[in-house]
Amino acid sequence: MVPYLVDLSGVAFFAASGAMAAGRKNLDLLGVVVIALVTAVGGGTVRDLLLARHPIFWIADPMYVYAIAGAALVAVPAVRLWRPPASAVLGADAVGLALFAVAGTRITLEAGHPPPTAVLMGAVTGTAGGVIRDVMLNDIPVLFRGGPLYATAALIGCTLYLVLAGLGVPTAASSAAGMVAVIALRAVSIAFGLGLPVFRLEDGRSDADSDGGRDRDPDGKS
Amino acid sequence: MVPYLVDLSGVAFFAASGAMAAGRKNLDLLGVVVIALVTAVGGGTVRDLLLARHPIFWIADPMYVYAIAGAALVAVPAVRLWRPPASAVLGADAVGLALFAVAGTRITLEAGHPPPTAVLMGAVTGTAGGVIRDVMLNDIPVLFRGGPLYATAALIGCTLYLVLAGLGVPTAASSAAGMVAVIALRAVSIAFGLGLPVFRLEDGRSDADSDGGRDRDPDGKS
Amino acid sequence: MVPYLVDLSGVAFFAASGAMAAGRKNLDLLGVVVIALVTAVGGGTVRDLLLARHPIFWIADPMYVYAIAGAALVAVPAVRLWRPPASAVLGADAVGLALFAVAGTRITLEAGHPPPTAVLMGAVTGTAGGVIRDVMLNDIPVLFRGGPLYATAALIGCTLYLVLAGLGVPTAASSAAGMVAVIALRAVSIAFGLGLPVFRLEDGRSDADSDGGRDRDPDGKS
Repeated sequence: MVPYLVDLSGVAFFAASGAMAAGRKNLDLLGVVVIALVTAVGGGTVRDLLLARHPIFWIADPMYVYAIAGAALVAVPAVRLWRPPASAVLGADAVGLALFAVAGTRITLEAGHPPPTAVLMGAVTGTAGGVIRDVMLNDIPVLFRGGPLYATAALIGCTLYLVLAGLGVPTAASSAAGMVAVIALRAVSIAFGLGLPVFRLEDGRSDADSDGGRDRDPDGKS
Repeated sequence: MVPYLVDLSGVAFFAASGAMAAGRKNLDLLGVVVIALVTAVGGGTVRDLLLARHPIFWIADPMYVYAIAGAALVAVPAVRLWRPPASAVLGADAVGLALFAVAGTRITLEAGHPPPTAVLMGAVTGTAGGVIRDVMLNDIPVLFRGGPLYATAALIGCTLYLVLAGLGVPTAASSAAGMVAVIALRAVSIAFGLGLPVFRLEDGRSDADSDGGRDRDPDGKS
Repeated sequence: MVPYLVDLSGVAFFAASGAMAAGRKNLDLLGVVVIALVTAVGGGTVRDLLLARHPIFWIADPMYVYAIAGAALVAVPAVRLWRPPASAVLGADAVGLALFAVAGTRITLEAGHPPPTAVLMGAVTGTAGGVIRDVMLNDIPVLFRGGPLYATAALIGCTLYLVLAGLGVPTAASSAAGMVAVIALRAVSIAFGLGLPVFRLEDGRSDADSDGGRDRDPDGKS
């Protein structure tokens, strides 16, 4: 029951963030719903395909499609009336990232795969929906834009979950700790402009730029 | 037998539309065939992967690969001699969309999944090949360009098929009705410039633009 | 054992080529590793998904993830110190292409699928990682850029392997012949600027341009 609600919440958060992000492009109403849907189910679908978990979570249970369409259709007028700041998109996205990353790690581990694969699959589950959304909209995926930590936050949160679970901490507590770590890392790195060193070659300088792209794209989304 | 011929025809129509569309880019001959292939089998492949239907329809049966390569190789010189109007590309694409969307709905339903999923999977089957083609060619997918109805036509046609089949109308008749609805909706919306309202935020106006993008891209393809 | 080492080598070559290619974009360190990973496992993952081979090769065995991350992390500082010429990227990529294409053909054939499908799946296995990498980085995929032979080299090498294997030549020898053919075709077509005729429509000339794009992009990568 709890995993079901977690999955459903992750889907709704990602759908809302997708719909808000889509509002920045000139999409028609169906396009907004499609982007919300792709953002919301993309990560879990890639996870289920890679792990051969069938039926894929949203196919057997129409509740997911309703939750996604509902979240998108609520988000669209809300966005038009309220003009959400970029931080609202980022916040919804961070919660979706945290829920999906930790759930992806747990599911991969329960399927009997090795811990490094589980951490990797957690990051894939958390980030693939956003990557597919960005590729479809012809943007550089959020993963590659430099700036604040994104997949790194997911990797660290998933590793924390894994270590705590391995030490015998109950699932609920270790999951919560992992998710809080993801959200906190994401929030702190956005607030303080922290990022991984950027690897530059093209401009003729071969030294890593360690400001993490602080001066470009401080909100990690534009 | 009939589903087989329908699938094979859908593949050939999509392959021809893909090859004609590829003629507008500077691709080499293999590139044209690859685009035809991706357009033709993309939607059904995504459907089969999501529903775990193996072997995937074109893998076990080389007839599909021959049909695709044949349609592409006929379309290439035909395009060069005949210079098809944009309407020829659109027409071949609409027939492929109709065949695949209704077939996708029927197959999903027969696999025991709920009706809302079946309609959604019909739209996915009909549109995914074109989306993958556009993403590979670095274009904004046809789905997101505004303008005439595309996925919406597929959703309505699939719903019509589902309702008729649920009322006990024989498969051949309900499928035909669904396909005619898809093609008719697509043709009418192209002819009269009908589309869903576009959702604009970026330019500072927050009101939906209800002309459906009539003035940009009237043929839905450029 | 040999297939395992071949797969692992293919992964490492592709990872190194991916990391070197990523150095030309402003990616952060994780982005470089992600691009290396996607380039390295993309083709084999698509193959395994399409053929329903589970567990997918890199999921059950963390050795692959280590090999990829290791190759990427060695390639990054190496690139910074050494400034590899474009030919180093091309060379690593050609070896990966050859290893994966022939392995993909062999695996598809062993799974009982028809020979035309096996050749096609070999080309898919060899090229899909690079296509996914290019799509993620918002580039036109290498497959569609015209210029030197790429997928064509894979198709010819896979066909050679298939014919030799069908004539009873032992697997090791027929595989080696197929791989050498791929690498040689790729090298020769880059060195001499050979390519397939380009199919042009847009500029109003309808005649195929048979110089194979010799004057643009001689190294097939920019």
